[in-house]
Amino acid sequence: MCAYTIGLDLGGTKIAAALVGEDGVPGFKVTELTHLEQGADAVIERMAGCIRDLQAQSDAPVLGLGIGTAGMTDSVNGVVIMASNLKWKNVPVRRLLAEKLGQDWLERTWVDKDTNAAVLGERLYGAGRGSRHMLYVTVGTGVGGGMVLDGKLYHGASQGASDIGHLVMLPEGPLCGCGKRGCLEALSSGPAIARTTTEALESGAESQLRLTFAARPLSAQDVVEAALRGDALSCQVMEQAGTWLGRGLAYYVDINNPEFIIIGGGIAAGGLLLEPVRRAISQFALPANTAAVQVLPAGLGPDSGVIGAAALAWHQLEHTSF
Amino acid sequence: MCAYTIGLDLGGTKIAAALVGEDGVPGFKVTELTHLEQGADAVIERMAGCIRDLQAQSDAPVLGLGIGTAGMTDSVNGVVIMASNLKWKNVPVRRLLAEKLGQDWLERTWVDKDTNAAVLGERLYGAGRGSRHMLYVTVGTGVGGGMVLDGKLYHGASQGASDIGHLVMLPEGPLCGCGKRGCLEALSSGPAIARTTTEALESGAESQLRLTFAARPLSAQDVVEAALRGDALSCQVMEQAGTWLGRGLAYYVDINNPEFIIIGGGIAAGGLLLEPVRRAISQFALPANTAAVQVLPAGLGPDSGVIGAAALAWHQLEHTSF
Repeated sequence: MCAYTIGLDLGGTKIAAALVGEDGVPGFKVTELTHLEQGADAVIERMAGCIRDLQAQSDAPVLGLGIGTAGMTDSVNGVVIMASNLKWKNVPVRRLLAEKLGQDWLERTWVDKDTNAAVLGERLYGAGRGSRHMLYVTVGTGVGGGMVLDGKLYHGASQGASDIGHLVMLPEGPLCGCGKRGCLEALSSGPAIARTTTEALESGAESQLRLTFAARPLSAQDVVEAALRGDALSCQVMEQAGTWLGRGLAYYVDINNPEFIIIGGGIAAGGLLLEPVRRAISQFALPANTAAVQVLPAGLGPDSGVIGAAALAWHQLEHTSF
Repeated sequence: MCAYTIGLDLGGTKIAAALVGEDGVPGFKVTELTHLEQGADAVIERMAGCIRDLQAQSDAPVLGLGIGTAGMTDSVNGVVIMASNLKWKNVPVRRLLAEKLGQDWLERTWVDKDTNAAVLGERLYGAGRGSRHMLYVTVGTGVGGGMVLDGKLYHGASQGASDIGHLVMLPEGPLCGCGKRGCLEALSSGPAIARTTTEALESGAESQLRLTFAARPLSAQDVVEAALRGDALSCQVMEQAGTWLGRGLAYYVDINNPEFIIIGGGIAAGGLLLEPVRRAISQFALPANTAAVQVLPAGLGPDSGVIGAAALAWHQLEHTSF
């Protein structure tokens, strides 16, 4: 191993960071609780601590630092614009970190949304290896995306690209957190899956989940697990969520003609979304564009957050001229 | 003027070609009938004749040749894959032309679909000047698109990108030429506008078009003109076509976060689609992405075909290293 980058995954609950080689294998790793309640400066100080620890452990030069975070980011300036799970607004992470770590970090620190980190992780080390045109989709509490076009991460005119969670599929459908109705996120996310199942149980549908439901509110994870055990209602709810997702992704397929769509996130685990997504894409997108795309589960495991963040640094080191 | 490219617009009825300077102003121009019935080789010979004429007239070096054509193209190999209005399948235009004009043309001839030529024309010389992220949409007999992302023409994994005419908006809607139902093209194109108006008249709707309709089948142009004169039914049909188009473009806006959407084509002339498109985008796309995009009418006039084709050559000369 001749060099590392550091990948740091910033979440509302914990900070995870690791030294990652150019082969994508995480080496030494540290994890800290985020402790949001202590304020942004304390969180940044804790991030700096992780980075100092990793540097101290490194047996090779650390070329760059990639930070993946939930929410909206300004990747040009290294700012978290708005992250509801961090309760942050306009926090200039790159500048604040460089004040603690040294100004030489400024030009080799990259901050981006976690789905952009994930698409690069999957492209460099995961299921979409080497692809020039790919979309990463996460299905969990929300539905989000990150995309690579012509071999490069794509942000759009105002860093708003790949915001696929709010494609409106059903204008009269269920209310979404964004204020519109029938967004993909209101139809295919974890909360949507839990809500749909709960409504069906309230209407008297048969299900293995009836006892659980009598005891406590259902989670999407309950539904995924019941579907994997063959519960008919849960299978049907997952199928419906996957079909809506596939219909939304069919728009992506005809607009951007990708080689890979990689599906990750908590709700995608178990693979129940894959078949309905593939079916809906082939039903709704053009045949030639459908033939060009492979829909695959995410290839990176539990370390995907730090690996993706490190991939952000490797990708930028490849595309940035100093 | 120190150099030209040649832009050639290949249509089912006519071939138009012109010397175009780097400022986008067409100089000497030639037009020929296509005479498809004589076969592809005769058409290619006629194209070569146009190019020889322009070269003979040129007072400066001709650096490259851009060819814009309807249908699907393989821009890497310079092949028209399928063009229904030319009745061509897999015609290797670049190679056949170089056999007639000289092998030195091979590496400076670019063939692409006309909407890709148009987006570059609008970007270099038209309504989207200097933009890094833009979509050109044509609304005429069909609905098609061409896109520039991060400053470069984008083709996708199999040259199928920007095929926005077949986004399925209404799965139970009117049948589209592609075999699916409720595609954008089946809701917003010229034939869709003529069909919707005809159906309304058959159901007894009031309209200035009743006399025309009694005499002959309505064209979309009749509807556009009546709407511009204030005919209520025609205004309503145009509004509906524009709203569907805007709903489809809202998907584009949230996926690719463009700076400009430029609307051209016969049905867009008169500007009746602009307001409903803008309204639908702001209703359906995310506020930040809506704020980032300007929806404008095409800026190039009747010479847009040859100017766009020449822009294809200028764009490629800028991005190709020899």
